[in-house]
Amino acid sequence: MKISVIGTGMTKFGELWDKSLFDLAQEALKSALENSQIDPEKIDAVFVANMLSGNLLDQNHLGPVMTSILGKNVPAFAIEAACASGGTATHLAIQSLLAGTYKNVLVVGIEKMTDDTIADVTTGLMGAASEEERSAGLTFPGLYAMLANAHMQKFKTTGKQLALVAVKNHFNGSLNPNAQFQNKITIEKVLGSTMVANPLTLFDCSPITDGAAAIVISSQDSPDNPSITGSAVATDHISISNRLSMTELLATKLSAQKAYAQAGISAKDIDVAEVHDCFTIAEILAYEDLGFCAKGQGGKLISSGATQLDGKIPVNTSGGLKACGHPVGATGIKQIIEVTDQLKGKAGKRQVKNAKIGLTHNVGGSGATAAVHILQI
Amino acid sequence: MKISVIGTGMTKFGELWDKSLFDLAQEALKSALENSQIDPEKIDAVFVANMLSGNLLDQNHLGPVMTSILGKNVPAFAIEAACASGGTATHLAIQSLLAGTYKNVLVVGIEKMTDDTIADVTTGLMGAASEEERSAGLTFPGLYAMLANAHMQKFKTTGKQLALVAVKNHFNGSLNPNAQFQNKITIEKVLGSTMVANPLTLFDCSPITDGAAAIVISSQDSPDNPSITGSAVATDHISISNRLSMTELLATKLSAQKAYAQAGISAKDIDVAEVHDCFTIAEILAYEDLGFCAKGQGGKLISSGATQLDGKIPVNTSGGLKACGHPVGATGIKQIIEVTDQLKGKAGKRQVKNAKIGLTHNVGGSGATAAVHILQI
Repeated sequence: MKISVIGTGMTKFGELWDKSLFDLAQEALKSALENSQIDPEKIDAVFVANMLSGNLLDQNHLGPVMTSILGKNVPAFAIEAACASGGTATHLAIQSLLAGTYKNVLVVGIEKMTDDTIADVTTGLMGAASEEERSAGLTFPGLYAMLANAHMQKFKTTGKQLALVAVKNHFNGSLNPNAQFQNKITIEKVLGSTMVANPLTLFDCSPITDGAAAIVISSQDSPDNPSITGSAVATDHISISNRLSMTELLATKLSAQKAYAQAGISAKDIDVAEVHDCFTIAEILAYEDLGFCAKGQGGKLISSGATQLDGKIPVNTSGGLKACGHPVGATGIKQIIEVTDQLKGKAGKRQVKNAKIGLTHNVGGSGATAAVHILQI
Repeated sequence: MKISVIGTGMTKFGELWDKSLFDLAQEALKSALENSQIDPEKIDAVFVANMLSGNLLDQNHLGPVMTSILGKNVPAFAIEAACASGGTATHLAIQSLLAGTYKNVLVVGIEKMTDDTIADVTTGLMGAASEEERSAGLTFPGLYAMLANAHMQKFKTTGKQLALVAVKNHFNGSLNPNAQFQNKITIEKVLGSTMVANPLTLFDCSPITDGAAAIVISSQDSPDNPSITGSAVATDHISISNRLSMTELLATKLSAQKAYAQAGISAKDIDVAEVHDCFTIAEILAYEDLGFCAKGQGGKLISSGATQLDGKIPVNTSGGLKACGHPVGATGIKQIIEVTDQLKGKAGKRQVKNAKIGLTHNVGGSGATAAVHILQI
């Protein structure tokens, strides 16, 4: 069966203090429905990806909040896998289409984060980690700093190479009207910015963001739209201390291998990718674990320019989590929207030439969940 | 394709102050795996139903928390639909089997509620309702009291009939070693207990509970185990004020109609049912909306004794949410376990004779989500 992305819509990402969760959902939903040109009566179910609305807004039960916007009594499901909520919700939506139970479904990713105190947001986000990591006083910059230090020690990856990820993604963000940050930055700016968790500076970290993104996916053939030819999820131990390695994310490797096998392709066939760059080191790890280069060669890959817009394998053309922003539940859906735009030749100033096969890579926590999707046109 | 419930396991429900969320999950998971006699290596994915671990325990991302217990890297998904989390998680797990993507999956429902203040738990639970309902100062007893008053006014349903639901379910709970309350009560006790929200007294309300329940479901044929022949979810507006009627739950009606059609049966074929009696009025509404009697006749049905253990259609043989307890995310899974036990003739002192077709009915919030499953042996 062919699963197609027949419509996409998203809000601008940023600090959207004049918009509620409801406003953001409404905007993304309506935009995706209009873009799909589907009769809303034909939407059979709604999948919602969100992490923190219970913690930050006292609002759980987002399924019927979304169907209330639609004004329909269709089934609705809220799915949470920390920052991988969007990728996992898409995977489950695909299962319901493959099962033949539903024919057209809406997948909405949403997060409203900037109305709360940093303390509340940090406590909420640390819900993606393990109790032992929280008890140790770790935060996510701290966790990824440990991964960065391990990688730098083992593979001689440099702070400058990490900084290049931020510079590239900010450049791409400068071409994306929906990005939270649309300003270019320099290596010096990254290296000279406030240290958050050594070696990660402020500009090595993705921001706190509000935003919503929605897609309509369908089991009805749609030759003008990309098909999802691979969809896989894998997990790893919730605590980094219980994992086999600190220099790879096993969940990324396992989900990528499965998704490639489903699509009948390999890493070298990917023309464009959106990967989970919550911190610059995460993009380096993704290069390696997705097979874009050998283990330990991620620093060299960014230095080579291969992942720039005009490179051999452009990565995070949207600006990534780093510059486009990271409204947690929305991120995985935005990745699919960006790749869909690229494959349809509608990515504007960020357009990659002749992109036929794209990949999205969405990670939860410090790597306890990973979801990989392959799209082809 | 035949989907079978090949294993079940649960903890005792109650105020389990000496057990953590992790302890409860581990106990239910291991028990379900043992009961299924499946090689744990053959578990392809884990679905987790939970509402409040983010709010109350600062722990989101329960998918990999569960796979960490299993020690496996399989895909894992956390699904939330307030008190209907268990039913909706089961529905999505079934989709993944029907899709052919997974062959054997674990569905775990879990909630750890009694370690927090009542204020925190109430705030968390109100996340199942709408912002306007929270702003109006409503709580769930208040919302269901409005439904009860509307029903009493329109159909002459009496407080004594509501009380009979509690008396029946406490009697059933007295026969269930896993129930939170194993004491019988009288009509006088219910009517004379503290008024919570007129007309609902303390004994018209389900309790706050800790507990976990797990099932293994499989697409491999298993003649000794019940098949799930119907699985449907529907939603209604998140706010009661926006719904068509205050004397029915439309989401229940819609999901039941779909599930009956899938199974090729009707309400009169049901031999045993677990329905969502978060408040006694909710069981009366369920009788009507599931088609066990005509609209408005729910009070008469309980008075007739038809829903008692030895009646024509025994309801809530486990004790229901009312007496077995209501650990929110676990409830929908416990319902499937109870019906499975009944169909396999393993319900001990609560055994219904010759039960061949069973139903589970799981509601989120004040009726914004409903999930209905049909099991047959």
